[in-house]
Amino acid sequence: MSGFPTLSKSEFTASLVRAKQERGISFEELGKAIGRDEVAVAAIFYGQHYATLEDIVGLAKALNIDKNLLSSQLSGFPDRGSGVEMPPKEPLIYRLYEIVQNYGQAYRAVMNEKFGDGIMSAIAFSTKVDKEVDEQGNTWVNISMRGKWLPYSRF
Amino acid sequence: MSGFPTLSKSEFTASLVRAKQERGISFEELGKAIGRDEVAVAAIFYGQHYATLEDIVGLAKALNIDKNLLSSQLSGFPDRGSGVEMPPKEPLIYRLYEIVQNYGQAYRAVMNEKFGDGIMSAIAFSTKVDKEVDEQGNTWVNISMRGKWLPYSRF
Amino acid sequence: MSGFPTLSKSEFTASLVRAKQERGISFEELGKAIGRDEVAVAAIFYGQHYATLEDIVGLAKALNIDKNLLSSQLSGFPDRGSGVEMPPKEPLIYRLYEIVQNYGQAYRAVMNEKFGDGIMSAIAFSTKVDKEVDEQGNTWVNISMRGKWLPYSRF
Amino acid sequence: MSGFPTLSKSEFTASLVRAKQERGISFEELGKAIGRDEVAVAAIFYGQHYATLEDIVGLAKALNIDKNLLSSQLSGFPDRGSGVEMPPKEPLIYRLYEIVQNYGQAYRAVMNEKFGDGIMSAIAFSTKVDKEVDEQGNTWVNISMRGKWLPYSRF
Amino acid sequence: MSGFPTLSKSEFTASLVRAKQERGISFEELGKAIGRDEVAVAAIFYGQHYATLEDIVGLAKALNIDKNLLSSQLSGFPDRGSGVEMPPKEPLIYRLYEIVQNYGQAYRAVMNEKFGDGIMSAIAFSTKVDKEVDEQGNTWVNISMRGKWLPYSRF
Amino acid sequence: MSGFPTLSKSEFTASLVRAKQERGISFEELGKAIGRDEVAVAAIFYGQHYATLEDIVGLAKALNIDKNLLSSQLSGFPDRGSGVEMPPKEPLIYRLYEIVQNYGQAYRAVMNEKFGDGIMSAIAFSTKVDKEVDEQGNTWVNISMRGKWLPYSRF
Amino acid sequence: MSGFPTLSKSEFTASLVRAKQERGISFEELGKAIGRDEVAVAAIFYGQHYATLEDIVGLAKALNIDKNLLSSQLSGFPDRGSGVEMPPKEPLIYRLYEIVQNYGQAYRAVMNEKFGDGIMSAIAFSTKVDKEVDEQGNTWVNISMRGKWLPYSRF
Amino acid sequence: MSGFPTLSKSEFTASLVRAKQERGISFEELGKAIGRDEVAVAAIFYGQHYATLEDIVGLAKALNIDKNLLSSQLSGFPDRGSGVEMPPKEPLIYRLYEIVQNYGQAYRAVMNEKFGDGIMSAIAFSTKVDKEVDEQGNTWVNISMRGKWLPYSRF
Amino acid sequence: MSGFPTLSKSEFTASLVRAKQERGISFEELGKAIGRDEVAVAAIFYGQHYATLEDIVGLAKALNIDKNLLSSQLSGFPDRGSGVEMPPKEPLIYRLYEIVQNYGQAYRAVMNEKFGDGIMSAIAFSTKVDKEVDEQGNTWVNISMRGKWLPYSRF
Amino acid sequence: MSGFPTLSKSEFTASLVRAKQERGISFEELGKAIGRDEVAVAAIFYGQHYATLEDIVGLAKALNIDKNLLSSQLSGFPDRGSGVEMPPKEPLIYRLYEIVQNYGQAYRAVMNEKFGDGIMSAIAFSTKVDKEVDEQGNTWVNISMRGKWLPYSRF
Repeated sequence: MSGFPTLSKSEFTASLVRAKQERGISFEELGKAIGRDEVAVAAIFYGQHYATLEDIVGLAKALNIDKNLLSSQLSGFPDRGSGVEMPPKEPLIYRLYEIVQNYGQAYRAVMNEKFGDGIMSAIAFSTKVDKEVDEQGNTWVNISMRGKWLPYSRF
Repeated sequence: MSGFPTLSKSEFTASLVRAKQERGISFEELGKAIGRDEVAVAAIFYGQHYATLEDIVGLAKALNIDKNLLSSQLSGFPDRGSGVEMPPKEPLIYRLYEIVQNYGQAYRAVMNEKFGDGIMSAIAFSTKVDKEVDEQGNTWVNISMRGKWLPYSRF
Repeated sequence: MSGFPTLSKSEFTASLVRAKQERGISFEELGKAIGRDEVAVAAIFYGQHYATLEDIVGLAKALNIDKNLLSSQLSGFPDRGSGVEMPPKEPLIYRLYEIVQNYGQAYRAVMNEKFGDGIMSAIAFSTKVDKEVDEQGNTWVNISMRGKWLPYSRF
Repeated sequence: MSGFPTLSKSEFTASLVRAKQERGISFEELGKAIGRDEVAVAAIFYGQHYATLEDIVGLAKALNIDKNLLSSQLSGFPDRGSGVEMPPKEPLIYRLYEIVQNYGQAYRAVMNEKFGDGIMSAIAFSTKVDKEVDEQGNTWVNISMRGKWLPYSRF
Repeated sequence: MSGFPTLSKSEFTASLVRAKQERGISFEELGKAIGRDEVAVAAIFYGQHYATLEDIVGLAKALNIDKNLLSSQLSGFPDRGSGVEMPPKEPLIYRLYEIVQNYGQAYRAVMNEKFGDGIMSAIAFSTKVDKEVDEQGNTWVNISMRGKWLPYSRF
Repeated sequence: MSGFPTLSKSEFTASLVRAKQERGISFEELGKAIGRDEVAVAAIFYGQHYATLEDIVGLAKALNIDKNLLSSQLSGFPDRGSGVEMPPKEPLIYRLYEIVQNYGQAYRAVMNEKFGDGIMSAIAFSTKVDKEVDEQGNTWVNISMRGKWLPYSRF
Repeated sequence: MSGFPTLSKSEFTASLVRAKQERGISFEELGKAIGRDEVAVAAIFYGQHYATLEDIVGLAKALNIDKNLLSSQLSGFPDRGSGVEMPPKEPLIYRLYEIVQNYGQAYRAVMNEKFGDGIMSAIAFSTKVDKEVDEQGNTWVNISMRGKWLPYSRF
Repeated sequence: MSGFPTLSKSEFTASLVRAKQERGISFEELGKAIGRDEVAVAAIFYGQHYATLEDIVGLAKALNIDKNLLSSQLSGFPDRGSGVEMPPKEPLIYRLYEIVQNYGQAYRAVMNEKFGDGIMSAIAFSTKVDKEVDEQGNTWVNISMRGKWLPYSRF
Repeated sequence: MSGFPTLSKSEFTASLVRAKQERGISFEELGKAIGRDEVAVAAIFYGQHYATLEDIVGLAKALNIDKNLLSSQLSGFPDRGSGVEMPPKEPLIYRLYEIVQNYGQAYRAVMNEKFGDGIMSAIAFSTKVDKEVDEQGNTWVNISMRGKWLPYSRF
Repeated sequence: MSGFPTLSKSEFTASLVRAKQERGISFEELGKAIGRDEVAVAAIFYGQHYATLEDIVGLAKALNIDKNLLSSQLSGFPDRGSGVEMPPKEPLIYRLYEIVQNYGQAYRAVMNEKFGDGIMSAIAFSTKVDKEVDEQGNTWVNISMRGKWLPYSRF
């Protein structure tokens, strides 16, 4: 059943971020500590991803938080999608939204051509963020997304 | 200056698609023919990406269309972002939108940690779509995005 | 690649409906003729579902339409979701919308309990409409929906 | 007259969920205990369905809550529809919304054909969620909806 | 199945109104001619109400229009609710909207008290408009609405 | 001048409803006690209608509430229209909204024909809700609305 | 009954404006010619105000247009409120909108104090625009509005 | 710099209204006491208009409030426009909004004709509300608005 | 009075752009030819700025268009603000929108501090776009805006 | 990582403004004290701009606030864009929005002509506000914006 943390979503995000700040630990290190990707860890912080009991125990240890407290905050199925106002006003998130707006039709046309009639799942899905510095010293962000291809059922 | 094709945007998209269909040529093959990625080619089809004179000549040849006709349709700077209603009703494009909605905050938190205060550019930006079949025979879509990191100016 | 019928979507819907009316054939009979469910056939009429070449040949025969004409109208991947303004103003469709609005949280709570963290696919999905007359002579509509359960990926 | 629980709707939902979690009892078991379907019980939890005095007594017993407290929270006519933002941002609920968006017109066309001019009631209405595992081991969700057919009055 | 008049909805409304104007016949007289209420007749003019074959024959005669032409325009199930932008900008219709906005909760509270948990149907429904002149010579509009009470199903 | 109850609008509604529930008195009885219609009384409860000093004294007596307390809550001119989100999500109120959406144009056409160029006032306005049981035992709701006809000024 | 000009609203506005331009006649002069205020005349041009047969005859003469043509365009009750998108994007109209936004509450508070519980009618209403040049040579616009005060009915 | 009252805007409005109510003083009397129009005073009450130190001293005296307290609430530049939801749901304010909607284009056409290309300022602006009783005993509201005419710059 | 070009706004924009393209003349050169800034000229092309008769004569000459044709298209007061959907989907225009969104409050605070209570006019206003190449060879855009300061009237 | 001040954004803005008011120091003086532009300082006050540790130390000193308190409020990456509702209701900010609405297309056309296919960055961006008094004694606001030109990547 759905979990109802005793804190509101933005309050428990704030308390997790504070603990992370005090420990001076990065999302990447937290991810390594519990065997998950850094983006998934950040999504757990924002209440947008499910944390198993094992994840909770690992995070509590890494963040030096009481395991039971964290468990009461994170248990249950997250109410995803509730944190971002759309269209996003935050400039970094807006750029991602703009990519969907500008390239959405092109992605669809290419996927239909390569895969047929269906969608890329956002559920059977994972994603990563990598940093690249090119030869001129410019910094680039690389986002990779991997989603299962789901063909439409025939009925 | 901005171009004003004699056809409306959806009309010239339709005429390009018909030509492509008649030639039986894929976006990937078109991309190879003119030295561009298939997603960029599809974006040109939807009027969301700029085509240089060289691109136009190459596309006209590959699609067997009159070069001057195509030039009158594609020349000028595209009015990007005009094709997709947001939130998208089309299921495939909605899934991409949902990824921004669900993971937007996590992407921001991870990028701020890795790169500092700034954004990933959607302009100095490229993207690819790849197909993967795993060992169980499941098909996966891999989207990769590469955008320049732009730090906020101090003033 | 996406298809671009020479008629607009509502025009080809109208021409299909007229042919159906003239032939005096029901969606159920059409469905039987081409081996598909009546809801899927109606969705094809509205440009919301994919028709294979075989479906097109079968529909053309059952509706007494030229196969090539129909093919030019139905081929390509449909631009789903474009037909219904949300919230729906049409009373019958609004009642379905209201069910999602009123029971959405309950469906989620029950599915999370029965299936875990995930969603019911609307892609790997089929649906049926049946008529029932109860003992008091009242007429009831039975809608059944069947969608694949997709658990969230762990990453 | 409408009831005004002393807790806000999301607060009493949270307190019911907590009680349910502590008792380790499922919606299905709660439903059996009070003679109602599990979806109806979940809808009562979310303040979207009416609970009779008998339901309240039964739920209080099954959840080990004080009957009078529960009564003060659940009595009165619920303010339905207030819990879900539309379009839904939560992915599971969005999939249901997408079904209405994609198949709404097809449902209407089929129902008009089968039943005439009218609507399927969302009030004289019941619904169920069932789990199915197919021969390949895939899990499917089956939703069934049953609503009274209401023909438009002639006046 | 849904009808698709060869004219758009606003065009056939205009042609019906013109015929009515030329004949110098009122909605009330039209209603009497075909045995229906004047509001129902006006709703048929706006494509918001179903006309039976008998209604069509009667209207054609009363309006001096070709029966087959009218039949091709009015046959099929109407796409209700499509004519009024909400909130309405037209002042007369806005006043009705304002009544729902201002008295909606009061109507609900009184109906719940008088009838229990349910709704007043807008489908099994009829309505009338009457004119009243009071003793001071003031003119009043009387609208009466009559809808079936539908109690929520218990499940 | 506008009144500013010390409680928020939903809080004083809740406290009035509780008092009414404890006294076991209906809106109809309250209306009789103070010489007003039950719908007007319910509208006062929701802060959508003006209560005179005399109304306040009468309600305080009927509800067994301190007159001064009630006066501080109800005095001043109400901020009408603030209680219902439009389009209404509550099913009963939505049905009323749907009537405006479906029949708005028909009402306007009939009123223009019967009354000329003007509107039905929603201010110089009263309304009633009555219960009817027909011969088959079906329950019907009768809503009557009476508003002054206001012709447009010529200038 | 509502009128249905053979031209769309913006087309007949354009044709009226052209006639006015060719005749070199101002709204003020047109108003004097037919005995109405210039704002009312402009509102008739935009299809936002009712023109009597006498107005039509006068306008036709002043504008040198065929009376029957004008009559076919202007007869019937106007569909008011259809011309301005809200919030207005046009800067001059936006300033008027901003006045309502900024001073709306103050107007209400002052009117409630001066007049009691009610509204200023926008139907039994007239308005004027005057030009003033002050001693410093600055130009000022004076708008005056006059509306009937309508007290709420007691019921 | 912008002021930040220790109370929220609606709280300080409420406290000002209460003080005004206790003193039994009208906006008109307050306006006379401090040499401003009653509409400007009401706008100050709603945080929509700037109060000078002198205004604050005068209001504090007239309302019998501590000058420093009032100063801490009213000092700073107001965040105008924050109080009214648009379109307004409050019936009195809606009527003003409707006037802009219905007559906006007519006002623009008349002003363009009388003044050229520009706008009427809503900043260099004042307004008044007057009461008129005509010979038949009807009450009318007269609103007058006076705004500076600003021609567009040529550049 | 407002002008009603025989072409729609986007059509005359297109025809102006085509003429400009054929002449191979830039906005800057056009501006010099008629003594106006290039941004003002582009705004005239988009129907967002007023062109005097002299401007029209000059543009017709520079663009080699018939003066009377251009005059019929450009004469009259423009319906400003009609061209850009807000929020803008076009990336370049969105960046300007984002600046208002991010720095709007800061601009207000600084202007209030420097100028008092008022606004910067967007009517008595001019603007320029300049190109700058810095020492590292990076290209920068410089936008300058100059608007008259308008203090709020005291009344 | 993102910072989570213990106060909400509007609370810490209020506390900064109060400190600034008590110290009687302007944004310009604060800017000089810490080596930044006054607009950037105001943006930091509104939580729309990043403050380095050095900025925080400088501001704390200039405002006479405890450095650690300020640090806990300002550290972390700001959630930009969250403060202004769009379209802005505040008149000063609305004028800036109107400039984008009216001149957006003209800016784009001129920049495309001068710079090619790309955007002006709002990230690699700075801005200033200056005061000018002309020879007639009129006050003008000069806003200058400087943003890096980013050409679209070719891929």
